[in-house]
Amino acid sequence: MPLFTGVIPPVVTPLTTAFEVDYPSFTRVINHLLNGGVHGLFVLGSTSEVVFHDEAARRRIIEHAVEQVRGRVPILVGVIDPTTERVIAHARVAQSAGADAIVVTAPFYTRTNQSETIDHFRYIREAVDIPVIAYDIPVCVGTKLERRTTVMLAREGTIAGLKDSSGDDGNLRYVMTDTADLPNFFAMTGSEIVADSVVNMGAHGIVPGLGNVDPHGYVRLWNLCQAGDFIAARREQERLCQLFEMVWVSLARTSAGSAGVGAFKTAMRRLGVIDTNIMARPQRSLNDEEAAIIDRILRQTGLLD
Amino acid sequence: MPLFTGVIPPVVTPLTTAFEVDYPSFTRVINHLLNGGVHGLFVLGSTSEVVFHDEAARRRIIEHAVEQVRGRVPILVGVIDPTTERVIAHARVAQSAGADAIVVTAPFYTRTNQSETIDHFRYIREAVDIPVIAYDIPVCVGTKLERRTTVMLAREGTIAGLKDSSGDDGNLRYVMTDTADLPNFFAMTGSEIVADSVVNMGAHGIVPGLGNVDPHGYVRLWNLCQAGDFIAARREQERLCQLFEMVWVSLARTSAGSAGVGAFKTAMRRLGVIDTNIMARPQRSLNDEEAAIIDRILRQTGLLD
Amino acid sequence: MPLFTGVIPPVVTPLTTAFEVDYPSFTRVINHLLNGGVHGLFVLGSTSEVVFHDEAARRRIIEHAVEQVRGRVPILVGVIDPTTERVIAHARVAQSAGADAIVVTAPFYTRTNQSETIDHFRYIREAVDIPVIAYDIPVCVGTKLERRTTVMLAREGTIAGLKDSSGDDGNLRYVMTDTADLPNFFAMTGSEIVADSVVNMGAHGIVPGLGNVDPHGYVRLWNLCQAGDFIAARREQERLCQLFEMVWVSLARTSAGSAGVGAFKTAMRRLGVIDTNIMARPQRSLNDEEAAIIDRILRQTGLLD
Amino acid sequence: MPLFTGVIPPVVTPLTTAFEVDYPSFTRVINHLLNGGVHGLFVLGSTSEVVFHDEAARRRIIEHAVEQVRGRVPILVGVIDPTTERVIAHARVAQSAGADAIVVTAPFYTRTNQSETIDHFRYIREAVDIPVIAYDIPVCVGTKLERRTTVMLAREGTIAGLKDSSGDDGNLRYVMTDTADLPNFFAMTGSEIVADSVVNMGAHGIVPGLGNVDPHGYVRLWNLCQAGDFIAARREQERLCQLFEMVWVSLARTSAGSAGVGAFKTAMRRLGVIDTNIMARPQRSLNDEEAAIIDRILRQTGLLD
Repeated sequence: MPLFTGVIPPVVTPLTTAFEVDYPSFTRVINHLLNGGVHGLFVLGSTSEVVFHDEAARRRIIEHAVEQVRGRVPILVGVIDPTTERVIAHARVAQSAGADAIVVTAPFYTRTNQSETIDHFRYIREAVDIPVIAYDIPVCVGTKLERRTTVMLAREGTIAGLKDSSGDDGNLRYVMTDTADLPNFFAMTGSEIVADSVVNMGAHGIVPGLGNVDPHGYVRLWNLCQAGDFIAARREQERLCQLFEMVWVSLARTSAGSAGVGAFKTAMRRLGVIDTNIMARPQRSLNDEEAAIIDRILRQTGLLD
Repeated sequence: MPLFTGVIPPVVTPLTTAFEVDYPSFTRVINHLLNGGVHGLFVLGSTSEVVFHDEAARRRIIEHAVEQVRGRVPILVGVIDPTTERVIAHARVAQSAGADAIVVTAPFYTRTNQSETIDHFRYIREAVDIPVIAYDIPVCVGTKLERRTTVMLAREGTIAGLKDSSGDDGNLRYVMTDTADLPNFFAMTGSEIVADSVVNMGAHGIVPGLGNVDPHGYVRLWNLCQAGDFIAARREQERLCQLFEMVWVSLARTSAGSAGVGAFKTAMRRLGVIDTNIMARPQRSLNDEEAAIIDRILRQTGLLD
Repeated sequence: MPLFTGVIPPVVTPLTTAFEVDYPSFTRVINHLLNGGVHGLFVLGSTSEVVFHDEAARRRIIEHAVEQVRGRVPILVGVIDPTTERVIAHARVAQSAGADAIVVTAPFYTRTNQSETIDHFRYIREAVDIPVIAYDIPVCVGTKLERRTTVMLAREGTIAGLKDSSGDDGNLRYVMTDTADLPNFFAMTGSEIVADSVVNMGAHGIVPGLGNVDPHGYVRLWNLCQAGDFIAARREQERLCQLFEMVWVSLARTSAGSAGVGAFKTAMRRLGVIDTNIMARPQRSLNDEEAAIIDRILRQTGLLD
Repeated sequence: MPLFTGVIPPVVTPLTTAFEVDYPSFTRVINHLLNGGVHGLFVLGSTSEVVFHDEAARRRIIEHAVEQVRGRVPILVGVIDPTTERVIAHARVAQSAGADAIVVTAPFYTRTNQSETIDHFRYIREAVDIPVIAYDIPVCVGTKLERRTTVMLAREGTIAGLKDSSGDDGNLRYVMTDTADLPNFFAMTGSEIVADSVVNMGAHGIVPGLGNVDPHGYVRLWNLCQAGDFIAARREQERLCQLFEMVWVSLARTSAGSAGVGAFKTAMRRLGVIDTNIMARPQRSLNDEEAAIIDRILRQTGLLD
């Protein structure tokens, strides 16, 4: 059995107007997700603005999540920083704080090759006692985890699974075929908009940032796929694609990063889940005009009356 | 007068076989550079493997450099991490440890735009009392500091200078023209191989990683340019280009990052400056066969008999 | 009704050892495809090595195809060259030679923007009386047809359909949603390996280069999707993914372009469809060792005993 | 002796409002350049909008240039199209029309590797009796001619020279060093803004598109460099950099390609050299407002009173 399956959203980290973690809001986010029926939480992923938080803040975030979840679902924790030893430090914090698994990218800023990246995962695996999940996100780190890299790491047992945010679904399909004989290995997609397709290819889970806004939608999508009702799954996916249009609302004014997570936060504020839509510095938060467009999208997709 | 001028090498950080900073070797590196006549030191730049070191290690590195240099030349300190608050934390450490200026890149991992990047520099400037130098290194951070970004930051006084490692010398030339009326602003190039050209365009300094191996060479180059002896400067530059061939020796086996700094360390070991050529994990160090090729290059360029 | 639907392979152009079009083999390719049950032919696409042929050769290729097909299925013709007037010249040749539609990329070599690219399609549309299909292939032309570009061209009637070889299936999904109210507009994917997914999203056709090797397979896949048998479609797709592994066999020695079409030609030679696996100059053809690996793949996937 | 040296501008191709070559204006362009003292002409380069012209138009352009120049300076002719045989066809036209050399890029649209690109140059060299010059322009063709590719082609005698428009001056410097013992080989840069630097590195010629606007300026620059007056050369270069600012005037509205050549045409129209600033379709021509800004730049740089 794959270690983790189902809908495992990357959890948004709400901030106060003083740019600190807003723990009451964070608690509500976790409850919102659990009430939505998600199968796990991915804390401190890119959607969590992980690289904006230092080690101490990360520890508190993990501890808070662990405390709130009380074992009801597994908690995957991103341990994202440029290089091996620093990732190991985060990994140890995560393990001691109660993470069920850690999620690790290729090194960044420094320019490593596939061989060195393989070593990176091995060193981290040796340093902790919880499973390591590879996180393929070339848009952030500048490197793709190649098929043979991922498959080698899977076959030798270094990684327990893959979270694929590369957008290369053909490659993901090959990785899944190549590892089909490994009973515990799992592959998940970070896509919000072709999640149905990737699940129908055989993916074991989905990790949609937009799941913060509409966890019920992605859980429905997941269940419909599992039930083999591909037509209804596609219909749900199309509604979620309409909802996802929010991520482009502020693009004329903000970066792509701010536009995406900023839209999620703005929608969650409107839905009463969190108190502010503040983004960590130097990102720009969405303004009122942009929030009004997001309101309209929430209405069109049935999340607001 | 520009705040800093001349040859300011990004200082290699030597490691022990246990992957810790080798302070006796580090002392020798500093003396080797000062004996070579350099005009400043850039500690914790990319060549220093900065992103491999955590905050505590960085503090010790800065303190050691400050202690050894004893004010003989200014010390610029790289404060390189993905996002604003974390950079500010490093910046405060640097300031309290005695840095004369800090060197700051655009955010990375997160995808910011030029406006957010401008805010990034402003927030950092507000947080410290020492000058901020912009570090343009798209190959590591994935974003170019655009001409108008740099010029705006210079004109408003947010940045005191620019270290350009973008390879876009035409753009650098425009930045220098646009800021020619700012008496204190300075521009330096990170290039090892067109340093003469960029100095002859009017650059105020050079920051060559290869200067760790041959500081005398770059100081000669600088002095020849200042004296207007362009023909001799070019001849010196061509010798240094021959020396720079070392950075491709291990490319079939290691990443570009390991190949470059790894070659400098291998050469410095051969020249008796440092004890090992160990690279921080997961980078690969150069092997004996590659070291032999580097020996040959050192001989061809007059650094070894 | 969309103008064209179903499996419309981009037809390989077989060559003699003298690098000329091998018309007897070309006839056999066409029959092989029609016998496989395909719903149309895409002549002079990238898989046809179109940019290796001049205007006169292209005219003969179109005429030969028209003559052999005798109206049994529609013939789409790629009119691929860098700029507007030259594309128009090819388009007129295609129309006069009997093409049912032309397939047009964004300009290349020259660097146009989306506005100029929109004009490019408009000028071409005005110059001919047959439908224009947009061909989105950034890997060859260096530019993506953005969602709003394609949708604007579709809504104003400039283009009758889209052939998407961008690999960005999420974007394709949005284009399909945005044009869902246009009864005649169609969207096809060039993917060989996620064809089932894209058809299940609602695509009206598939244009798989690998269809030259196994047209029956892609027709089966198409029919299974139309019948709603997603499980069997997926199984067929996975067999075709295994077959597609042939495109990487020669990558250590040849370019990606030669490796892909060269593998198709090598397989088709083995299956008795064409006489040589010669690639147009300066591409390299696959050698005997590589052909032996392709034989094995053909056996593993049931195409050879 | 290198075959060609000095200032060899890529000649703009003026168009009528009917988008045909304006031969009276073309004659004036040639005279303007020869009066400016240039040492050769590069006809049908990227600045000539070469890929917008078919074979027949190209033949007339070459013949017109040959007829007007009457042997006073050598004429280099770009033979630019995606693939080998088509380039050979252009090359034969160029040779028969009186070209002194042909200028050849790597293949494009198709994705070839360095080995296939080497063969491409060899096949073309075999097909004609005039020298072949390699044209490195990755921004248009998507591939860089690597150092070892260029050097191999130079050493075996396939290419007589290199025109470098890659912007990688460090690489160009290594190519020049590697070929320093080949007495006839030459290297030229396409840069308008670091021309002085590259000549001072040892380049044998410059091919500045902006030379169409101010040939005297680039000839002065060249002569100053040859005379060893680096300070005055730099001053001239800085004036030309100010003039070059024209290429960004229309960027908010047109593509980069249209903005650059379109600005040159607009300036040449203002200077009375050509009749229109029309760009080949689908490119956009500069409008009156943009032309007014260019007027101002011409005044600031001393080209207009």
